[in-house]
Amino acid sequence: MSSTRDIDALIQMMAKLPGLGPRSARRAVLHLIRKRDLQLMPLADQLQKVAVTARECLNCGNVGTTDICDICEAEKRANGMLCVVEDVADLWAMERAGVFKGRYHVLGGTLSALDQVGPDQLRIPKLIDRVESEAITEVILALNATVDGQTTAHYIADQLEEHVTLTSLAQGVPIGGELDYLDDGTISAALNARKAL
Amino acid sequence: MSSTRDIDALIQMMAKLPGLGPRSARRAVLHLIRKRDLQLMPLADQLQKVAVTARECLNCGNVGTTDICDICEAEKRANGMLCVVEDVADLWAMERAGVFKGRYHVLGGTLSALDQVGPDQLRIPKLIDRVESEAITEVILALNATVDGQTTAHYIADQLEEHVTLTSLAQGVPIGGELDYLDDGTISAALNARKAL
Repeated sequence: MSSTRDIDALIQMMAKLPGLGPRSARRAVLHLIRKRDLQLMPLADQLQKVAVTARECLNCGNVGTTDICDICEAEKRANGMLCVVEDVADLWAMERAGVFKGRYHVLGGTLSALDQVGPDQLRIPKLIDRVESEAITEVILALNATVDGQTTAHYIADQLEEHVTLTSLAQGVPIGGELDYLDDGTISAALNARKAL
Repeated sequence: MSSTRDIDALIQMMAKLPGLGPRSARRAVLHLIRKRDLQLMPLADQLQKVAVTARECLNCGNVGTTDICDICEAEKRANGMLCVVEDVADLWAMERAGVFKGRYHVLGGTLSALDQVGPDQLRIPKLIDRVESEAITEVILALNATVDGQTTAHYIADQLEEHVTLTSLAQGVPIGGELDYLDDGTISAALNARKAL
């Protein structure tokens, strides 16, 4: 009956996306309707396409449109180095930095007693498999510097310390960071890890 | 070739929406891929549906899925009162307030010499038609309190002042507003329009 029911439904769906609320969802939908041919149609088609093809890499957990992702398939990447990250967004952030040339392993979260997430809910057994089967020599634990992230890092280190070299990202002052805006923990970590000039 | 090309394309499209940038577009797309059945599929379908059915009301310019929108069709709404707004978002904002019971007319923008927007690029001729054909007695100019909005209001007032009563929204302190945070213009407008208690 209502001539705006479909549009209202669309706004409600858009408002559920992270980073969008009801107001920005309304703006986005009106914007799309105004640019029907240039943006609305292509976006709808692309969403359909991704809905059908997106999948997790069976090996590392990265998101792509093939069963084994580009990074796992790439022959040029260094074998033997594995960078362990919490989720796909972290993997993409590492790739944007463009300095790591090894392969990745996405855990899919962190251990959490409160949320009842144990090693088997994460991709930790698969990580242990890969360390053996891919002859990994170094595992870089690039987990977030949060309590859960560090707990998970310690757990993985316990499992793997006899088999591989374990490293973690350095902690300190971010590039462009101002001391005045840094928290006490970061300043103290940076001081403890100070380097000779 | 690339297993993430489709996903990258989707992220780029999402990043073009107002209120989203590359980072929030990535977050939104990862979120959608994780909730494929619950959110991604329905959103893609709904976008397709809206892409096909969304249209502007031929009478007032509101956006809906029928040639004449619900508000223009509604028999219960007061005839004779027309609220003129700049765009559809403004109409929806008025409707959310839920106090106006007349009908609307969406201009589709404001007059602007710089952007070469004249009366014929807006829905102003149609407004003048409607004032006559729908026997309008009051036109409420609910345009934004910007220079362009007020210029447009003055232009419309010039065209219609001999035919109908013209009113505009009151200007003053917003509900819940704190004087300390208001600009000088608003305070001066509120003072000039002060009312006896």
